[in-house]
Amino acid sequence: MTHRIAIAPSGFKESLSAARVAEAIAAGVRRVAPDAELDLIPLVDGGEGTAKALALAGGGRLVPVTATGPVGDPVASHFALLGGPGPLTAVVEMAAVAGLALVPPDRRHPGATTTYGVGELIRAALDAGARRILVGCGDSGTSDGGAGALQALGARLTDRHGRELRPGGGSLHELEHIDASGLDPRLADADLLVACNPYNVLCGKRGVARVFGPQKGATPAEVELLSAGLERLAAVLTRDLAPALAPPSGDPVDLRTAPGTGASGGLGAGLASVGARLLPRYDVLLDGLDLDARLARADFVITAEGALDHQTVRGKIPAEVARRARAAGVPVLVLAGTIGPGAQDVRAVGVDAYSAILPAPMTLGEAIGRSGEFLADATERAMRIMALGTRLAPVTPGVRAAA
Amino acid sequence: MTHRIAIAPSGFKESLSAARVAEAIAAGVRRVAPDAELDLIPLVDGGEGTAKALALAGGGRLVPVTATGPVGDPVASHFALLGGPGPLTAVVEMAAVAGLALVPPDRRHPGATTTYGVGELIRAALDAGARRILVGCGDSGTSDGGAGALQALGARLTDRHGRELRPGGGSLHELEHIDASGLDPRLADADLLVACNPYNVLCGKRGVARVFGPQKGATPAEVELLSAGLERLAAVLTRDLAPALAPPSGDPVDLRTAPGTGASGGLGAGLASVGARLLPRYDVLLDGLDLDARLARADFVITAEGALDHQTVRGKIPAEVARRARAAGVPVLVLAGTIGPGAQDVRAVGVDAYSAILPAPMTLGEAIGRSGEFLADATERAMRIMALGTRLAPVTPGVRAAA
Repeated sequence: MTHRIAIAPSGFKESLSAARVAEAIAAGVRRVAPDAELDLIPLVDGGEGTAKALALAGGGRLVPVTATGPVGDPVASHFALLGGPGPLTAVVEMAAVAGLALVPPDRRHPGATTTYGVGELIRAALDAGARRILVGCGDSGTSDGGAGALQALGARLTDRHGRELRPGGGSLHELEHIDASGLDPRLADADLLVACNPYNVLCGKRGVARVFGPQKGATPAEVELLSAGLERLAAVLTRDLAPALAPPSGDPVDLRTAPGTGASGGLGAGLASVGARLLPRYDVLLDGLDLDARLARADFVITAEGALDHQTVRGKIPAEVARRARAAGVPVLVLAGTIGPGAQDVRAVGVDAYSAILPAPMTLGEAIGRSGEFLADATERAMRIMALGTRLAPVTPGVRAAA
Repeated sequence: MTHRIAIAPSGFKESLSAARVAEAIAAGVRRVAPDAELDLIPLVDGGEGTAKALALAGGGRLVPVTATGPVGDPVASHFALLGGPGPLTAVVEMAAVAGLALVPPDRRHPGATTTYGVGELIRAALDAGARRILVGCGDSGTSDGGAGALQALGARLTDRHGRELRPGGGSLHELEHIDASGLDPRLADADLLVACNPYNVLCGKRGVARVFGPQKGATPAEVELLSAGLERLAAVLTRDLAPALAPPSGDPVDLRTAPGTGASGGLGAGLASVGARLLPRYDVLLDGLDLDARLARADFVITAEGALDHQTVRGKIPAEVARRARAAGVPVLVLAGTIGPGAQDVRAVGVDAYSAILPAPMTLGEAIGRSGEFLADATERAMRIMALGTRLAPVTPGVRAAA
């Protein structure tokens, strides 16, 4: 087949970066269509690997930083400084300093984990001269509403006895007052952009503690305590940091329910309270990729994700790619490491077809270990099925008929 | 898609009959192409389930028989009597009385297992008035060259002391003489057709003991003993039963190397020595299905197999379907429970594309337990990928272009 094919996948968590996924898919495509024009567009969603991927893609570099990890121990972390024109831009990936993978399984108590290190990375980026800081959210191991990050940036969060709060969302319900006088003054001049999943909100029925608390290790009782604490945090932030909540560019952010306030255990809300802008993550992360035009040029698009399930339509990369490709009338195939309940929902956002990659029964560990090989093989198989389809009469209305 | 689709699958061993496989595939197709004309053609290969499937398909019935199992204990077995015109036809499925599944795992010594029960079933079929007997091979647990079946049919196999041989291929190297005078005289008037995989031969480098002995539980030393025994059996059968080896219809069968002599641990050779015709299994088993014409009428064919691997091209159902479909210029898709090494060889025999059915990592047991559901879902996914293909320009030379 001599087609133009855009390959715009996510990474596979725990096994392959987006770049490796794109390469594996390309290898599978070439076995069937050696002459196809391939456009590899590995994508990141703000979570694990985002800083590295953007540094690689943008001619930048990673800056190592030792910072406070989610359970309080120091961790070897990093941020990225991007190349290119304009103000010096840093990428702070919250997962690199407060991600779930950094929380030992036996210490997964989201009431006790902190985003303190995120604040430290932001300060380090400011120290490096960054004037524009992209904060990637996703894969977090915290639920502290960004309280730790605010503390690291100089704010004092105190209880009714005037004592500094202990780290973690579990003590937020004791919050009485926030003193912002010690906030790093450079924040006022920096452009802080938080790349959020807009579906994530801080409070309410779909609030972040209820939706993500359990997978971070919270019991039902802890979920309620966290929810109450985040409510309290939103109220005190709104009261005590009000001036920062009306950015020159728009209306004040409702810290409880604005899109993205729940990002990374509420980090979105915390950073918004000191002037950060919460933006749909792909608007931030795809900046400069020219994604829409590249998808529109393709005859079809292949995207991929480690797990295709009910969460996919809620802002995951295949859903974003499909939404954009559909706008251009370009069909979309998804390859998935695992297909779970609700996967079929992706058809509503523009995915035409999807396929699993496993050739045989095996453990998750083996599947992860061989995911690159399986992905290339599964891509080849899907391409051959598609090629079989090209031999049949088209029936979908409004399609490009064969010559 | 309003296409004509022929669904011509094998059963999935240990989980789904061919009829159930065909139904699952049809269910998946209908989710994507509710108006497609589906032609369900469940196929059997002579192994497990063959008698039942042919009885069901041909308006016949199963006749229960208690017979000698492969390790000598009685087993509840059966043969089929088919409906329809012509001479009364029985189907004797060797796996139903001497199959590997009937050999307890701790007794898998192919030197000791016997096809005695196969001879008993043939006699039972003759008792029932059958004048045409189809013997299905495959899934056997024996390597006795059909010696047991000959004994049950009245032949005496003796060693140099004139003693009857013990059951099993392990004693064949002691064979000195065969006395056919006691053979059931009705065999002379019956038409005995053995449905063989023609790739299976009795002796030589690709002889049945070497190729299949290990998977029936033989050690390397036992394989050599069995090979020597089968060589001996071929020599004595040829010498002592020579008259039966020149059927009126053709040349004498070379019991060592003729196609099908190795079927079911050499049962083919044993039965050929008493006048049975060894035929390519699909010529026997597909008789009356009008398969070629039905495949030719389809826009494409879906077939399926439990495991797609290097054995598939050696006479498995998807390979046979593909060979016939290719002759009619009809593309073929295979759905496989498992894809193993060598699966890609099927492309050379006419398979255009294949797909695995598993959605996620899991154990073999779970995969088997949910195979119907997974098969329907995987069919749906493949159909959507194919439908995506129908929207692309065809490129394969000589294809039917879109309107």
